[in-house]
Amino acid sequence: MAEFPAPIAKLIEEFGRLPGIGPKSAQRLAFHVVSMSDDDVKKLIEALLHSKRDLVFCESCCCVTDHSPCFVCGDAERDHTMICVVQDTRDMLALERMKSYRGLYHVLGGAISPMDGIGPDELRLTELLHRLADDAIKEMILATNSTVEGEATASYIARLAHHFENLAVTRIAHGLPIGGDLEYADEATLARALEFRRPI
Amino acid sequence: MAEFPAPIAKLIEEFGRLPGIGPKSAQRLAFHVVSMSDDDVKKLIEALLHSKRDLVFCESCCCVTDHSPCFVCGDAERDHTMICVVQDTRDMLALERMKSYRGLYHVLGGAISPMDGIGPDELRLTELLHRLADDAIKEMILATNSTVEGEATASYIARLAHHFENLAVTRIAHGLPIGGDLEYADEATLARALEFRRPI
Repeated sequence: MAEFPAPIAKLIEEFGRLPGIGPKSAQRLAFHVVSMSDDDVKKLIEALLHSKRDLVFCESCCCVTDHSPCFVCGDAERDHTMICVVQDTRDMLALERMKSYRGLYHVLGGAISPMDGIGPDELRLTELLHRLADDAIKEMILATNSTVEGEATASYIARLAHHFENLAVTRIAHGLPIGGDLEYADEATLARALEFRRPI
Repeated sequence: MAEFPAPIAKLIEEFGRLPGIGPKSAQRLAFHVVSMSDDDVKKLIEALLHSKRDLVFCESCCCVTDHSPCFVCGDAERDHTMICVVQDTRDMLALERMKSYRGLYHVLGGAISPMDGIGPDELRLTELLHRLADDAIKEMILATNSTVEGEATASYIARLAHHFENLAVTRIAHGLPIGGDLEYADEATLARALEFRRPI
C-alpha cells in the first residue's frame, strides 16, 4: 500500500517522459503540482495548450515559430544566398542573438542518432535538398553540434550536397572558446584547436 | 527579433517556476512539448488536471492521498499511539516501503526555512498539536530531514511538544549509512556517528 496514489503515479509517469527528468525529479514535480494553487496549475495547462495550438513550423526553414514564414525567412533584407543548417530552433535563436549573421537557416529537428532511433528520414532533409536545388543558394554552413551525432549529421549532409556544383559547403569552426583557459580545455578541443590553427 | 515566439516564452516561464527546473531545462522542456504529439500533450494535461482534482490531504495526517483518511490513518490495525513526523508525503511513502513501522504519520508539508519564506505558520503544526493533545499518543518520532531546515524544524516541534507530559519525543538516528564506506562519509556524518556511538 506504500505506493503513490493513482493520480500522482500517472503524473509522475508523464513528467518522467519529458527529456532530462529522472524518476526522482518527476516525483518532486508531481508533488509540487499538488501543492500549487489551482490558478497556477491552470496557467501551466494553458501555456501547454497555447504552445501546441499557436506554434507552427516555418514552411521554409522548419523552425518553430508563431507565424510562417518566420521572422528570418520573411525578411527580404536578409542574405537569401546563405543557409545555416542547425539541429534545433534554439540553436537558430542562439545564432540570432549574436546579431551578425544575415543569412537564412534550416532547422533539421535533431541529429542522426541510431541509438535513439533517429535516422536521416526523421530529419528535415528533403526540405533542405529542395531549398538547395534553388540556384540562388551559394553557401551552406553546417552548424550542427560538435557531438558524435552532430558531426555524423554534418558529414551526411555534406555528402548529400556534393552534387550541387555551385554550392560551397562549410562547417562552423571548432577550437578554444573565447575567454577560456587553455589548461582547462578538454583534449578533443585542444586537438581540434591545434589541427585547425591558422596563420595570423 | 531573436526572441522566443510568445507561446513558447510563456511555456518556458511556466516550466521555470517548477522546482529544480533552471532556464535551460525550461527551454528544453518547452521545445520538447512543441515536438510532442497532440495525444501526448493531452495525456500530460489530463494527468495535471486529475492530480489536482482527485487528490486531497488526509484529514488526520495531512498526507497527499486519493481518499481521506489515508490508507495508514484508516487502518485500525496500525499502532495509533505513535506518530512519525515527516516533511513530505514522499518521506512517509519511503518509510512505508520499509514495511516495518506500524505507527501513524504526520506530514508537515515542508520545513522551517526563513530564506524561502516558510515559517512555522506555513507548516501543519496546529493539526499536529491537536493530535498530540489526544492522550492516546505515547511517542512522537521526529523524522524531518538532516538538513539545517529539517533540524531546526525538529527542535522547534520538540520545544512545542514539551508540555505534553506523557509524550516521548524522539529523533530518528543519524550516523553512517548501511553499506557505506567510512572513508567516503562526509565529516558531519562521521562526527554524528562518533557522537552517538552506542554499546554493543
